[in-house]
Amino acid sequence: MELAFGDSVLTVEEARPEAFDQLDLAIFSAGGDTSRELAPLAAARGCVVVDNSSAFRMDRTTPLVVPEINPKALEDHNKIIANPNCSTAVALMALAPLHERFGLRRFFCSTYQAVSGVGASGPIELEEQVKAWSEGEMPQPNAFPHPIAFNLLPHVDAFRDDGYTKEELKMRNESRKILDLPDLKVSCTCVRVPVFRAHSISINAEFGSQPNVPDAHAALEGFEGIELRDDPTQNNYPMPIEYSGVQPCGVGRVRVDHALDNGLALWVVGDQLWKGAALNAIQIAELLLKKDLV
Amino acid sequence: MELAFGDSVLTVEEARPEAFDQLDLAIFSAGGDTSRELAPLAAARGCVVVDNSSAFRMDRTTPLVVPEINPKALEDHNKIIANPNCSTAVALMALAPLHERFGLRRFFCSTYQAVSGVGASGPIELEEQVKAWSEGEMPQPNAFPHPIAFNLLPHVDAFRDDGYTKEELKMRNESRKILDLPDLKVSCTCVRVPVFRAHSISINAEFGSQPNVPDAHAALEGFEGIELRDDPTQNNYPMPIEYSGVQPCGVGRVRVDHALDNGLALWVVGDQLWKGAALNAIQIAELLLKKDLV
Repeated sequence: MELAFGDSVLTVEEARPEAFDQLDLAIFSAGGDTSRELAPLAAARGCVVVDNSSAFRMDRTTPLVVPEINPKALEDHNKIIANPNCSTAVALMALAPLHERFGLRRFFCSTYQAVSGVGASGPIELEEQVKAWSEGEMPQPNAFPHPIAFNLLPHVDAFRDDGYTKEELKMRNESRKILDLPDLKVSCTCVRVPVFRAHSISINAEFGSQPNVPDAHAALEGFEGIELRDDPTQNNYPMPIEYSGVQPCGVGRVRVDHALDNGLALWVVGDQLWKGAALNAIQIAELLLKKDLV
Repeated sequence: MELAFGDSVLTVEEARPEAFDQLDLAIFSAGGDTSRELAPLAAARGCVVVDNSSAFRMDRTTPLVVPEINPKALEDHNKIIANPNCSTAVALMALAPLHERFGLRRFFCSTYQAVSGVGASGPIELEEQVKAWSEGEMPQPNAFPHPIAFNLLPHVDAFRDDGYTKEELKMRNESRKILDLPDLKVSCTCVRVPVFRAHSISINAEFGSQPNVPDAHAALEGFEGIELRDDPTQNNYPMPIEYSGVQPCGVGRVRVDHALDNGLALWVVGDQLWKGAALNAIQIAELLLKKDLV
């Protein structure tokens, strides 16, 4: 099978275990089942795997890495490196520099997640529903359990018995691992919104020391991969249409939190297909090569 | 001027002060400036005013009332009664029964506010932008500072010097007054979403006593004006398309909060034009008449 990629045409081959014999590094993005089956086989044949699925993220021997945040975790890899959940990666891009400066204790967050988070079927469904709506119709939902056009679903990923979704738990568990804060308290509510691309997250974060907005701005501005967009009286704040198809995540609405003693409220937006997935995987791969860890 | 209303045609007259001489009760919904000018004149002429604007909400002599929550506050009125902010009314419909049961200490919330919150221009603009987008265009924004179709604006109402919007402060100040909890800590982030009608709010609430989900469900189910929609494994949770043009607010996603010692996370949706404005005003007027307070 051949696939157009940019100006070239690539030949797609079946991912048989022997295929990894000749590879130094592979990026997996075919879901948890495929990763669980093939990544250990690839690793056994000497190929380092950067895995975009959730299969190995919480495995103790697998580093879970955002290169701007915990690059050192790469040094201990066992040939599989996990790429974090999309919302978690975007949220931590804002929280990591604030943690460095003020010491993160806990955070509350509510997400505003784009339809492309479920794959290609999400944007197609939103587009179809919007077009049908323009003609006075509403088609049956398919990619989502309910219509998403002009609607919100407090439902991302599968529900667990305790009422949380898996996505909400990923925010807690992966944040703890990436920030190396095993007792970090995280409360997350994940919501699907009728936006094509880029996830947005409203965060209330509590710190060990008293934060202030100027120092928070300085910490964010000095952090690679972050753009500070915080001049609200000029209507300047990050929005998903401006953070789609761009590398940095945007942070704004930074203010002293009204309900936490040492808290900040903030708003972060990032392209979940890029920083929340593909870009981060490529950055991991580049760092592995640069550090001679392949 | 004549205006169609249901099956009848109403004659619209200019609101001159003398016009209130013959009225027992008037519902004002023409903005803060009009209310500040005319409500005291109407009250002086013996007409009780239910005011939908923010003009008198925080005035010490003016009751701020959600009839299901603080009906007794009506008894002390001085002929003006204020109708609360739309997001606040919807949030408190969920929080009031939980406060009664567990004792509210503080809450964090992130809103998902429909475009109709700015008036008729909001839905018109969303519809125009979506139709233009279907034809490959994107018109200039007008009702909002940026495009709202397929986008999010962390911006509802005007910004203050401390980085909060007036809307975010209304959530704190009006909640304190309605619940009679002057020290209640409230941290709110308000976000405009491409939904036509009904506001949704993600809440993390801390209580004085340890809450649990069954008791929270029982408290919510027994509260007038609330519908419990909390069977997530059946994809049953409140969504704005189902709470547009209906009287009750829907509450779901109730779960033990992961970052608060005595906390619950929850999701509430309500029609901000009804329970958040017109319906609540009519309920106040009905209660005034029923209690012989006009």
